[in-house]
Amino acid sequence: MMTVFSLDQRLAADSLPLCQTDISLLRVMRDARFVWLVLVPMRDDLADLVDLSPDDETRVMADVRAVSLALRKGTNCDKLNVASLGNMVRQLHVHIIARFESDAAWPGPVWGVGEATPLDDLPDWAQSVRQILITKNWSAS
Amino acid sequence: MMTVFSLDQRLAADSLPLCQTDISLLRVMRDARFVWLVLVPMRDDLADLVDLSPDDETRVMADVRAVSLALRKGTNCDKLNVASLGNMVRQLHVHIIARFESDAAWPGPVWGVGEATPLDDLPDWAQSVRQILITKNWSAS
Repeated sequence: MMTVFSLDQRLAADSLPLCQTDISLLRVMRDARFVWLVLVPMRDDLADLVDLSPDDETRVMADVRAVSLALRKGTNCDKLNVASLGNMVRQLHVHIIARFESDAAWPGPVWGVGEATPLDDLPDWAQSVRQILITKNWSAS
Repeated sequence: MMTVFSLDQRLAADSLPLCQTDISLLRVMRDARFVWLVLVPMRDDLADLVDLSPDDETRVMADVRAVSLALRKGTNCDKLNVASLGNMVRQLHVHIIARFESDAAWPGPVWGVGEATPLDDLPDWAQSVRQILITKNWSAS
């Protein structure tokens, strides 16, 4: 029987679908203050990057690299932040954030800063990033 | 002429040397509240993981994986946090932190939380982690 990956309910509520590879779901965090993506490896019951098999980690990190390059190209950001934390949502996920010296949390990290500005539709930057990734064989979600 | 990698001055002041591979320096953050390592790829003038060549990124991520596994084994932590931020110190570095539900920042991230508790000598946990890594062909620094 085929198993179906289940996205954590809080991650699902806090983000919008963007695009995917065979192993990674890429989603946009619903906070209009930041250019903030979350990549979720479609593997059940993992919490840390090291819980991935070495082969899966290689594939996931290749996807993180492609997303990072697309974010940099699509947004002309000042810095990338890439992080696997998961202290609150246990399901393994990787934050990939384009940071700007003008953003609401600079130079601190974005987690736990103030209140999110709600986001209901994909912003222009996310559509640009998706366009770039689709040329690299990602599929729209 | 051989080039010599220069560690950022603030990173040097805020951490203690632990061990290294051909490409990575591993250092202990001088904050006794946390089990907090920083891995610095010995490549000049890079800010983001994607600035590494693909081959170097593979080597660095293999080192991050070895350190993560050693931390988990050496500390029996509740969660690993792995992050490349660099908004304050530009030189590329990767935080690898063993988190505990009892630690001073849980479940938030450790950056920018309160004042560091000074640390002048390697704590026991760091010596355990170094012992594990030396069996994986790391060298003491």
